[in-house]
Amino acid sequence: MPKRVLINEVVTRDGFQSEPDFVPTETKVELINALAGLGLNKIEVTSFVSPRAVPNLSDAAEVIQAIRKDTPTRYVALVPNQKGCARALELGVDEINLVMSVSESHNLANMRMTCDQSLQQFKDIAEMVSGTPMRLNGSLATTFGCPFEGQQSQERILRFVDAYLERGLHSLTLADTTGMAVPNQVQSLCEEVRKRWPELELTLHFHNTRGLGLANVYAALAAGVNQFDASLGGLGGCPFAPGATGNICTEDLVHMLSEMGLDTGVDLDGLLLQSQRLEEIVNHDLPGQVRKAGKRSDTRPLPQSVKELMQNGRS
Amino acid sequence: MPKRVLINEVVTRDGFQSEPDFVPTETKVELINALAGLGLNKIEVTSFVSPRAVPNLSDAAEVIQAIRKDTPTRYVALVPNQKGCARALELGVDEINLVMSVSESHNLANMRMTCDQSLQQFKDIAEMVSGTPMRLNGSLATTFGCPFEGQQSQERILRFVDAYLERGLHSLTLADTTGMAVPNQVQSLCEEVRKRWPELELTLHFHNTRGLGLANVYAALAAGVNQFDASLGGLGGCPFAPGATGNICTEDLVHMLSEMGLDTGVDLDGLLLQSQRLEEIVNHDLPGQVRKAGKRSDTRPLPQSVKELMQNGRS
Repeated sequence: MPKRVLINEVVTRDGFQSEPDFVPTETKVELINALAGLGLNKIEVTSFVSPRAVPNLSDAAEVIQAIRKDTPTRYVALVPNQKGCARALELGVDEINLVMSVSESHNLANMRMTCDQSLQQFKDIAEMVSGTPMRLNGSLATTFGCPFEGQQSQERILRFVDAYLERGLHSLTLADTTGMAVPNQVQSLCEEVRKRWPELELTLHFHNTRGLGLANVYAALAAGVNQFDASLGGLGGCPFAPGATGNICTEDLVHMLSEMGLDTGVDLDGLLLQSQRLEEIVNHDLPGQVRKAGKRSDTRPLPQSVKELMQNGRS
Repeated sequence: MPKRVLINEVVTRDGFQSEPDFVPTETKVELINALAGLGLNKIEVTSFVSPRAVPNLSDAAEVIQAIRKDTPTRYVALVPNQKGCARALELGVDEINLVMSVSESHNLANMRMTCDQSLQQFKDIAEMVSGTPMRLNGSLATTFGCPFEGQQSQERILRFVDAYLERGLHSLTLADTTGMAVPNQVQSLCEEVRKRWPELELTLHFHNTRGLGLANVYAALAAGVNQFDASLGGLGGCPFAPGATGNICTEDLVHMLSEMGLDTGVDLDGLLLQSQRLEEIVNHDLPGQVRKAGKRSDTRPLPQSVKELMQNGRS
């Protein structure tokens, strides 16, 4: 199990993209600035998708221009095509995240491209980025299951990992897009990927749709994975299941890891404060549990009746 | 990892005990009868505690008398003292569950006894039960942390396991009473208990208070544990944290295990139906997630737009 675990925050992209009400640009910038001071490894700030498809991220460029740049946190933008890549290069984003689905049908539904077309585009983007300081992360959506096709074969997943690396992508995210992963599946796939590509920078991206988010993190840790995406407060719905929760919750993840004795470098109390602030921003309840229940280490005062019983026992 | 996992349902005891409105006896009986047909190993039906302390379980005897007896499911009653044991014997309960806390202060708060006094009582109860067909399970509350004292030493926990077995208890439940367990702690303790007492029938009882319930199940499975308590719908609050969830959810647990390829013998669809019924009984939202999100294996029809793209690709 790794001693040091890196946490990537995705709330302003994966969280806000499904919020019905537009979050003001200034509010986004304030939240990102606050989060960037808390020791997170990366923040996936926004996405250069069509403003029509995702109205809440239509201010991508303004947000990137306005956020503070004096922190070690790496800023990431999700980029769907060459045009998005050109904008990210122009704005000086630290890293772009490219996505395709392992499942052909999900890639068609989500990107309106075949997997082969996506891979061709990644090659073109890698050429655009080559020679610049911008880093390229590749995400494999529906790695642990496709809502249309079900489970994907390990052979197909590994073939796409190979294709990503061949095209010059610097790091990889295995994403459980609709919360279908189960822990033994996660552990076995992560062990295989780490065995074949021991030097690969590998991130796991889980959704807690069916309550298995942190179980899957534990399974990935057992396979030696040391980098996870998460969303403040657990914000981010499942597009197919109204009422179902979305991404694993950043503060619940950091709480688990630090109570397990692992070092995340993240300020948990600071996260809890920002999660409280986030609930005011989106104006609805968030699924994160540690903020409701308190940290495991927050012991409570002894009830008076117990103190009396203890004193009687001594006398 | 075990191939076969046994599930013990606790909703009518651990779930109903914290419901503010009295659940009619007939409704309890109907629910237990329905659950008993679904392949559960045990059902903790009720508790012989003071009706003043837990009004919702004041009909313990009536419930036990009325439920069907023609199923292989073992019926359990929680028993706090000799008087409760005598009632259980009289009513022909299959098994009683005795509880003390690992933490002295929590045992004083919960049972108003020292741990030594509890152990003495268990000895007396074991003598009452000896020679009857009734089985005796011993639960160790606050095994993974006490809300007043924090983490308990492994040495103290193991000493109490030993004390339980010396007093003739047949099986053991390690209980995470207020949801403080973290997975590496669970795995390491379970490995130790199974190493010292390889023949012991061992159950783990988790609460999902801080989102770690199923992660802890995975950790216990990795240590070879094959029996878990859970509550339908996840019903059961945390007495110290309003809004925090309680027990791990039976249908979410069975869903995880069966999707991992493990055999529980439990009818998941039947559980999902009863969970729906339970929501009507208690008249509030339940934390269980699979009922909201659907099973992982419930794939969705391809969107028309994707079908068209696929057809165009072929032509």
